[in-house]
Amino acid sequence: MEPRISAVTLGVADLDRSVAFYRGLGLQPEQVVGTQVAFFQFNGFVLCLYADLAADAGIPARGAGLTSLAYNVRAPGDIDAVLAAAEAAGGSVLRPTHDTDWGGRSSYFADPDGHLWEVAWNPSWPIDAEGRTSLG
Amino acid sequence: MEPRISAVTLGVADLDRSVAFYRGLGLQPEQVVGTQVAFFQFNGFVLCLYADLAADAGIPARGAGLTSLAYNVRAPGDIDAVLAAAEAAGGSVLRPTHDTDWGGRSSYFADPDGHLWEVAWNPSWPIDAEGRTSLG
Repeated sequence: MEPRISAVTLGVADLDRSVAFYRGLGLQPEQVVGTQVAFFQFNGFVLCLYADLAADAGIPARGAGLTSLAYNVRAPGDIDAVLAAAEAAGGSVLRPTHDTDWGGRSSYFADPDGHLWEVAWNPSWPIDAEGRTSLG
Repeated sequence: MEPRISAVTLGVADLDRSVAFYRGLGLQPEQVVGTQVAFFQFNGFVLCLYADLAADAGIPARGAGLTSLAYNVRAPGDIDAVLAAAEAAGGSVLRPTHDTDWGGRSSYFADPDGHLWEVAWNPSWPIDAEGRTSLG
């Protein structure tokens, strides 16, 4: 892995409530997709609010504050090497690599404390030479 | 708030285990402070592994995956306006603004889903014009 992420995803129970909260802090979403997900362009990555994070990660719902960090690879074939390294280092693959309905590929692993990492390939979100990801 | 963060902090139970895990993924910490905290320079922010996150945030220990996003302000007097906006928008102040043993000032609030945000002033971590934070 390079020392970078493409997204921080916060699991939310009510997307409208959460978008209103972050608007109250002065943050404006670039995209809101139905009642499922909202995207904010942050400094070199995307902040996502997502109503289905637990299901997307393949885990039962947890209590407050479920969060995932997304490491987007530069080529679709690069995902499995990251998952293999995570397993070799003591992590757990939660959801193997699969095609997504947004046109990319995704997977999830957990670190030894249960922190979620998504390892994904998203052809719509460019990654620059310095590792900064932007909304397409 | 500007659309940026200065740190993502992952609460860990055993710092040595966690540092070994992330080294196994190819990530090298810039600093490891005893058994408490490790810092990795990421793309425009710092990834922290921290053994005392719940106590620092002023909350009881939770289960797996406790995470905090840090919003560092540019001047120490700017923290309270962010906390006031968070409360006005429906968030909860978990720990009011206080001096820290690392020479800055810190506070925590929770969003409506219990996601932790630290609002801090850290004179040792520069923030550039584009909002990118680096280790001092």
